Amino acid sequence: MFSALKRLLIGQPLKSAELGEQKLNKTKALAILSSDALSSVAYGPEQILIVLITISTAALWYSIPIGVGVLILLLALILSYRQIIFAYPHGGGAYVVSKENLGVNAGLLAGGSLLVDYILTVAVSISAGTDAITSAFPSLHPYNVNIAILLVVAITILNLRGITESASILAYPVYLFILALIILICVGLYKGVTGTVTPEMHAPIGTPVAGITLFLLLKAFASGSSALTGVEAISNAIPNFKDPGPKNASKTLAAMGLLLAILFSGIVYLAYAYGIAPKAEETVVSQIASQTFGRNYMYYFIQGTTALILVLAANTGYSAFPLLAVNLARDKYIARMFTIRGDRLGYSNGIIFLAIMSIILIIAFKGRTEHLIPLYAVGVFIPFTLAQTGMLVKWVREKPKGWIVKLTINLIGALISFTVMLIFFITKLGQVWPVFIFLPLIVYTFHKIKKHYEAVSEQLRITTCEPSIPIKGNVMIVPVAGITHVVENSMNYAKSLAPDQIIAVYVAFDREAEKQFQEKWECWQPDVRLVTLHSHYRSIIQPLTKFIDTVEHKANESNFRVTVLIPQFIPKRNWQHILHNQSSLLIRAFLLYRRDLIVTTVPYHLKK
Amino acid sequence: MFSALKRLLIGQPLKSAELGEQKLNKTKALAILSSDALSSVAYGPEQILIVLITISTAALWYSIPIGVGVLILLLALILSYRQIIFAYPHGGGAYVVSKENLGVNAGLLAGGSLLVDYILTVAVSISAGTDAITSAFPSLHPYNVNIAILLVVAITILNLRGITESASILAYPVYLFILALIILICVGLYKGVTGTVTPEMHAPIGTPVAGITLFLLLKAFASGSSALTGVEAISNAIPNFKDPGPKNASKTLAAMGLLLAILFSGIVYLAYAYGIAPKAEETVVSQIASQTFGRNYMYYFIQGTTALILVLAANTGYSAFPLLAVNLARDKYIARMFTIRGDRLGYSNGIIFLAIMSIILIIAFKGRTEHLIPLYAVGVFIPFTLAQTGMLVKWVREKPKGWIVKLTINLIGALISFTVMLIFFITKLGQVWPVFIFLPLIVYTFHKIKKHYEAVSEQLRITTCEPSIPIKGNVMIVPVAGITHVVENSMNYAKSLAPDQIIAVYVAFDREAEKQFQEKWECWQPDVRLVTLHSHYRSIIQPLTKFIDTVEHKANESNFRVTVLIPQFIPKRNWQHILHNQSSLLIRAFLLYRRDLIVTTVPYHLKK
Repeated sequence: MFSALKRLLIGQPLKSAELGEQKLNKTKALAILSSDALSSVAYGPEQILIVLITISTAALWYSIPIGVGVLILLLALILSYRQIIFAYPHGGGAYVVSKENLGVNAGLLAGGSLLVDYILTVAVSISAGTDAITSAFPSLHPYNVNIAILLVVAITILNLRGITESASILAYPVYLFILALIILICVGLYKGVTGTVTPEMHAPIGTPVAGITLFLLLKAFASGSSALTGVEAISNAIPNFKDPGPKNASKTLAAMGLLLAILFSGIVYLAYAYGIAPKAEETVVSQIASQTFGRNYMYYFIQGTTALILVLAANTGYSAFPLLAVNLARDKYIARMFTIRGDRLGYSNGIIFLAIMSIILIIAFKGRTEHLIPLYAVGVFIPFTLAQTGMLVKWVREKPKGWIVKLTINLIGALISFTVMLIFFITKLGQVWPVFIFLPLIVYTFHKIKKHYEAVSEQLRITTCEPSIPIKGNVMIVPVAGITHVVENSMNYAKSLAPDQIIAVYVAFDREAEKQFQEKWECWQPDVRLVTLHSHYRSIIQPLTKFIDTVEHKANESNFRVTVLIPQFIPKRNWQHILHNQSSLLIRAFLLYRRDLIVTTVPYHLKK
Repeated sequence: MFSALKRLLIGQPLKSAELGEQKLNKTKALAILSSDALSSVAYGPEQILIVLITISTAALWYSIPIGVGVLILLLALILSYRQIIFAYPHGGGAYVVSKENLGVNAGLLAGGSLLVDYILTVAVSISAGTDAITSAFPSLHPYNVNIAILLVVAITILNLRGITESASILAYPVYLFILALIILICVGLYKGVTGTVTPEMHAPIGTPVAGITLFLLLKAFASGSSALTGVEAISNAIPNFKDPGPKNASKTLAAMGLLLAILFSGIVYLAYAYGIAPKAEETVVSQIASQTFGRNYMYYFIQGTTALILVLAANTGYSAFPLLAVNLARDKYIARMFTIRGDRLGYSNGIIFLAIMSIILIIAFKGRTEHLIPLYAVGVFIPFTLAQTGMLVKWVREKPKGWIVKLTINLIGALISFTVMLIFFITKLGQVWPVFIFLPLIVYTFHKIKKHYEAVSEQLRITTCEPSIPIKGNVMIVPVAGITHVVENSMNYAKSLAPDQIIAVYVAFDREAEKQFQEKWECWQPDVRLVTLHSHYRSIIQPLTKFIDTVEHKANESNFRVTVLIPQFIPKRNWQHILHNQSSLLIRAFLLYRRDLIVTTVPYHLKK
């Protein structure tokens, strides 16, 4: 039944050979990998205005030069990442680049912050999208958390189905959002120029404003650069692209950069031109849309696609997280299970892990994850900086043709990213301090795991030439609970293997039962030695393990192996399992992990 | 670590022989078994007034005759249960009595409704107690559900520690509550008589009231009889009493009846005398207390002990549920695990099951379980009626000395209980209808489980004389994942048992790996046959089971047994388990439950 449900939700399994067919063309890749970056337009410009309004409405004109600054940062990042794509065609982005050029710890720092960041992406985007939905339908508001969890589950199922099928469904909303915003910008500009809509008063650019400080402008710039979260997604996902991967990826990256630039500057300019000030109860995009169109169908179209793309931004996390996890797992820094492809060729474990972690975040923060945004942004600029610096080192070290230009591009990228990161730490320390705790912790865990994997493979390697001591003989211990077909079955099996000794063990709770059982056993299996143990505390495991210890100790002396044979009857139907004492399972679990024993389960299947 | 925590919370395990010392004397038994019944005084009288006030305040005098009716019902129940205690000294109450005299289904009906009822007792009492606590400290109100769950956990731990230790702690609040209410009643009466407190206007008894109907009076009577929930607890718990059990139990029952009668009539009379009408925001007991004492320390003493005893009422469920469960489990109607005594000689599984179910109810109803009260009351009167009717049949059948008197007592008890039950069904059908769904379902499940247990013991019994076919030989299959010490270890073991054939199986994901592995194997273990399987879908289990099926089919023809040897390495530390593919566990689980195979786990313990 479970597997039928799985088939229905996830689809039929795909053969490994079908991997190629699951890859992305450029149109789909743009949709699937850029929803995070593009959706940032919905809140990035607003972040700038929120900082500026703390001075006065006159200060709002600074959004224009700050916007230009963000555009320059965007250009630098796009150019830098373009170089990364060609230099590292197998993907991996910040993690691989930092690791190879700056050393292991820098790589792990980048990788760790990105892993956490993708989880934050999912939690934050889904929560924001849910807010947008429940703002439209206020009666749904009490169910915010439930709706957010449902959305996570839905996106998880889409991703478990496989990446291209998800893309087909997810592409429409992204393109609709782009279309909606471009219409908004064009109509807004046209109406502004023709004067159909009278722009409100706004201070001309260059108006001197009292009280403006560099600190404040930097803070506004840093806030605005939260619009750039998500631009690294493409460089991590090159293996998902159709061949030739790097070329397709770089074209997609350029297209995304262009779109992001257009939408961002359009929104920033219109906000300035219409003299819009940020309000707590209405977003800047919503204000622009309602001034341009009034509250008609176009307004709702824009609001609707904005809500949708916020939800879909979460999907970027789903594309990027499993791929990064694979890279880390291949290097043995996280559990090996992240490298296994599922039935539909996606890395199911990564997808499921991401879903669980983000659901935990959503529940823990009751769907109100807004104050995670600065944390999220700083978590992005750490790997940005590391990756650019890594490229810098690479160019200096390798000095390929035209390296001076390449160096310059990455140098600018590194400097700007580093500055933004510093600004975050300085201006928003109260919100980003957890970074200083969890990042070292994550890097420590990575090392710990790697060390363990290496110790294991060291011990398993057969070339260590530790001569294996031959086994001289076998002792079999059979815990018995009564004189039944189940025990008979196990006894027959033990005898058929002809070990050197078979010992049946019976744990009695009172002397009466003990004596009775011994007599019965004598008649039934006179050739098998029976040991009865007395249990004062009604525990079966304690006396049993004590006895087994003694046997094992003796057996080890003469290099005998001890096998515990557990007779177990298997009921016909699943629900019936709960009706039977789980003693045999308990015994097995207990013995296997505590002692060097071989444990054999001899099943006896019931027929009715 | 887990076991250290368990020791701390639950205490050292006790020997089976120490059972006698855990039994209850009368003082402790009264405290532990009557908190449910006595706490009903806190809401029973109020229930009567709530129905009467729907007519007018003039109708409130009817509470006096209705109160007398409830007292008669109480007397009938106490006398009836006294007879049950002596007739069934081994306990079991309604379940045993109904089963023996009215047949299996009546017994199961009684048992099933009591089981559900004890769960409701816990959920309802704890929620009510929590409400009382958070009414006193309103700032705690948002944490109602959490507090309720914490209380359930605390009471569960007390009960897991064992019944007498719980009694010592739980006895004080019960006696304090009794003391508090008796002081309240005495002072209230004295002040009423001396006129220190001027009673408000109240209609004299017998005042004609317009609009009063028999239906309404019956409804008020039924509501008031909710004060009697819990009186059956003592008759179920006779085995918990010190010897002589029945005598001690009957004395305790009489004491409880007397106390309940005094408290109930005192509250009903004072409410009438002070002309108190029920209010939504203040309980009747609170109104009486504040009129008598004003809001001084005595008022808070009364409110405090009332809150405490409501929480402790839950404990009645903990005493009664596990004992009833043992009776049902001994008769094989529920899972056998309920008969096992835990470390501290309590029936831990019953206690834990009760805790989990009531926590689920508390969470599901968000701590607002008040509307479960009618369901809870009707669930009590079903077994009341069945037990009394059962006694009736017993006396008619056995005709012991003085049976006419005994018959009369139980006849009256049966008639009144049946009437109250009918009144509940007629006047509160909207709230008690779920009884008609879940009771038949529970009885059906009981039968289903019994049938299963009987089928199992039938099949296991060795006297069925089905001759066991001797095993002719053994085939061992070893799934291998590489050439490592783990595999070597398993191979050595397999060879030492000298089966007729050893087959190593390797599942390859691509042709390249397959070929390579075959070559390596040839060199390493030339004497062991290697079978390589190809997996298109990256699943290990599918090709493996397919192969094993084939081998098993052949083996069965010549009566060979097939053993699957699973090489498994055991990491040194627990946290490391998650880092390794759980393939071997998966394979084991899959094979064991689906096929008639013997599964052996050969552990290889890592040393670092």
